[in-house]
Amino acid sequence: MVSRENPRPGGRSARVQAAVHQAVREMLARMERADVTIPLIAQRANVTPSTIYRRWGDLQELLADVAASRLQPETEPLKTGSARMDLQAWAEQYADEMSSGAGRQMIRDILAVSDTANAEKCSGYTQQQLRVIVARAEEQGEAFPTLTELMDFVISPIMYRILFDQVPNSDYIHGLISRVMPKGAPSPETAEATVDVSGA
Amino acid sequence: MVSRENPRPGGRSARVQAAVHQAVREMLARMERADVTIPLIAQRANVTPSTIYRRWGDLQELLADVAASRLQPETEPLKTGSARMDLQAWAEQYADEMSSGAGRQMIRDILAVSDTANAEKCSGYTQQQLRVIVARAEEQGEAFPTLTELMDFVISPIMYRILFDQVPNSDYIHGLISRVMPKGAPSPETAEATVDVSGA
Repeated sequence: MVSRENPRPGGRSARVQAAVHQAVREMLARMERADVTIPLIAQRANVTPSTIYRRWGDLQELLADVAASRLQPETEPLKTGSARMDLQAWAEQYADEMSSGAGRQMIRDILAVSDTANAEKCSGYTQQQLRVIVARAEEQGEAFPTLTELMDFVISPIMYRILFDQVPNSDYIHGLISRVMPKGAPSPETAEATVDVSGA
Repeated sequence: MVSRENPRPGGRSARVQAAVHQAVREMLARMERADVTIPLIAQRANVTPSTIYRRWGDLQELLADVAASRLQPETEPLKTGSARMDLQAWAEQYADEMSSGAGRQMIRDILAVSDTANAEKCSGYTQQQLRVIVARAEEQGEAFPTLTELMDFVISPIMYRILFDQVPNSDYIHGLISRVMPKGAPSPETAEATVDVSGA
């Protein structure tokens, strides 16, 4: 589907996508979800309903696409001078956002469609953020887990608990991170001291 | 809701639940999902629609309840004589079932409702099965991970990949298990040899 191909910025396709996404976001903020329909979205976005059907197939696919776009990160993870502390802060924020009402609804929208493209996009955004932190660790010479280890042993347990169990708190996240750190990595206390010394 | 309370077996409440669940399962096997409605379910189950609305609230809640019930394990994990091998076999089967079309649809139904009771029930069934394997390890004197470690570092990454990424294969699952095993636990090869020797 065109909508996933990141249309040429400024082109007609990109403008239609932006208008439709914007209309959906505004309507979801103001209306009951069950009242949001493709004809109403089309009216608000000033496109024809058939444009939406042709491009997204159905309402559920459109909602999944909008949800995935909302999960696209706008900024890089906070930089503290210690990759481990960056990871802790970022993972706590991730857990907060994903377990919020809006976050859960986005996850539900993404998983509601049988096509997994939007789910993979969502996981891709997470990996993109973690890659930044892994690269910082490397630059700073910090022993650090790989991206795959972070996905499997920090992100996956957080997401599982959000979906199927109790929402994880920061102590739990701290425990996951401690466990996945390679031997010889600085403890958070050491890392904190390093930040103070370097003034970074 | 009564439906979650495991009604007294043989009572009217249990009979209504069984009839409604049965009707839903049969209809889902034969009809398009979008055509399944509460009035049709009521007709097939020989109850009034208001019985269903009173008990489950709406169709989505009923589908989530049916999906969670289908995930209830019918048998204990296969017993090989080695808890590690039991875990490997069980986890592979879990990944197969959850990533199948029917499994994904059940997960979607469970996560589609904002109420998390059915999601927790589903995680509860998984923990129940793993507890059996952990108890076997203890009886057999095998060094073994805790239930929490299994949930966080084996089940969670499997489920994350099924939902957001590529379906995990048995090598990947093997890698997760190797990593979560405590130091001094027998390797799969040793474990296998033990089985042969003991003849269990």
